Amino acid sequence: MTDPHFNKVALIGIGLIGSSLARVIRREKLADTIVVNTRSAETLARARELDLGDEYYTSAAEAVRDADLVIVCVPVGACGRVATEIAPALKAGAIVTDVGSTKRSVIEQMSPELPDTVEFLPGHPLAGTEHSGPDAGFAELFRNRWCILTPAGRSSDEAVEKLTAFWEACGSRVDTMDPDHHDKVLAIVSHLPHIIAYNIVGTADDLQTVTESEVIKYSASGFRDFTRLAASDPTMWRDICLHNKDAILEMLSRFSEDLSALQRAIRWGDGQALFDLFTRTRAIRRSIIDAGQDVAAPDFGRQASGQK
Amino acid sequence: MTDPHFNKVALIGIGLIGSSLARVIRREKLADTIVVNTRSAETLARARELDLGDEYYTSAAEAVRDADLVIVCVPVGACGRVATEIAPALKAGAIVTDVGSTKRSVIEQMSPELPDTVEFLPGHPLAGTEHSGPDAGFAELFRNRWCILTPAGRSSDEAVEKLTAFWEACGSRVDTMDPDHHDKVLAIVSHLPHIIAYNIVGTADDLQTVTESEVIKYSASGFRDFTRLAASDPTMWRDICLHNKDAILEMLSRFSEDLSALQRAIRWGDGQALFDLFTRTRAIRRSIIDAGQDVAAPDFGRQASGQK
Repeated sequence: MTDPHFNKVALIGIGLIGSSLARVIRREKLADTIVVNTRSAETLARARELDLGDEYYTSAAEAVRDADLVIVCVPVGACGRVATEIAPALKAGAIVTDVGSTKRSVIEQMSPELPDTVEFLPGHPLAGTEHSGPDAGFAELFRNRWCILTPAGRSSDEAVEKLTAFWEACGSRVDTMDPDHHDKVLAIVSHLPHIIAYNIVGTADDLQTVTESEVIKYSASGFRDFTRLAASDPTMWRDICLHNKDAILEMLSRFSEDLSALQRAIRWGDGQALFDLFTRTRAIRRSIIDAGQDVAAPDFGRQASGQK
Repeated sequence: MTDPHFNKVALIGIGLIGSSLARVIRREKLADTIVVNTRSAETLARARELDLGDEYYTSAAEAVRDADLVIVCVPVGACGRVATEIAPALKAGAIVTDVGSTKRSVIEQMSPELPDTVEFLPGHPLAGTEHSGPDAGFAELFRNRWCILTPAGRSSDEAVEKLTAFWEACGSRVDTMDPDHHDKVLAIVSHLPHIIAYNIVGTADDLQTVTESEVIKYSASGFRDFTRLAASDPTMWRDICLHNKDAILEMLSRFSEDLSALQRAIRWGDGQALFDLFTRTRAIRRSIIDAGQDVAAPDFGRQASGQK
């Protein structure tokens, strides 16, 4: 077993993911020193109040000095800037990774900026909630969630083993994958669902014949399920749309093509086509529950969680 | 206060809604006699095993004899047939209602069949889960959920008061609404979300470049939220699509129009448009939680409900 422990870990960004990492690193004793960095003095002060780290800096360059592991936890649109800032200060042999939801773009932004003396190994923990900021994090966030590492030809086998051990110690299951394949997989399992959720909530908000108060009042009949994803962090999702454009546009056209066929079946009263689709999709839910990727309780277990 | 009690209640259909009604009627002592009817001998036997009622019939006509309240709990496509079957056997003065998700079509199917001697008062409890059948029901299903009554000019004020008292005793909050307005409201808060969920799950299932096992394995990153709605009863949803066609097609075109604009913003890199939409939708989630229509716990409280 590779030792998952690092002497000094620098977290660049302390939002939902960064602050969850800080909490689990401390709980599992995965670092002697946790360094917290964010550009916002206000957010940094909050991180300090929450006692998330051992050292606090608004400068990313200062934060990474002597760090053995640097985890960039910022929206994917900011990765290039961060790489430029930290590059001169990185310790030789340090592992530099990230948590971004797109991988090809992160590699293109960061790789040219980073010195050859570091191990660059992009990563993506598939974990999150609709909440954001340092208060939203919790140590259990990564438990039994997947973390995908996408080596970009700039990391040793030892670095892959070490980072895998680290994420496993955080509670994750780890896969490695080609960056382009990652971007396609995430476009369908994550990016398309979020974009569709944002879109449907926007459509409902625009209606005049049905009032917004009616939409809210009767939302338990289906609509509310979409509002969770559509409440995700706007900056993060703007950047994902801009940085995984090709894969997202491809998924959107497939989705629209299928929706046109479904719309046509409704218009022409093709009950058999509707029944066949609605039966096929039911089986997929069962597979997801069997794979332990969702709760079997009806309605996501909302009643059990104390809904009035 | 109007007395919510009836001497004899006949449930035509004993799926998720019918069997939940049977359970809450018994628990709250809302009827002296509960009559259970379903055409399937097998389902009727299961209802008997579950001890859902006091009398059991495969004939709807036999089931409604002497009933003071008849609740039709079948897919909306079957309402006309049920009305034809029960019409000759209905007791004078009985209240006939239903639980269908579309109201104009139910009125058009049932109203011409029913005798003038009964009170016909369509209704729709906005309650359900992705499970179906007599085993899926539970007495708490209607608690704090809305039930919408849509008078069709064939019920007295007393009947509206009586049925309102009944649904309130089942735990519901009751609104009355014009049937056409109901169909528009439900098209946006329920029908469109279900259709979009079915569609996206279908699209994901069709992909070749991303395997189905990858879709399932990584579904917690967003996709799984849609699979719950897409696991709803296929017959029920086929019928809703066929019986609220006009309102659904209108909502689908608005949705598609908005999606095209969003797609264009992604293609042309319009970050401001994306950010504005993603910010606006976040506020709606907060309104829904403030209105008590969803849980505030992150991730629908899945962790609290025991997810591994």
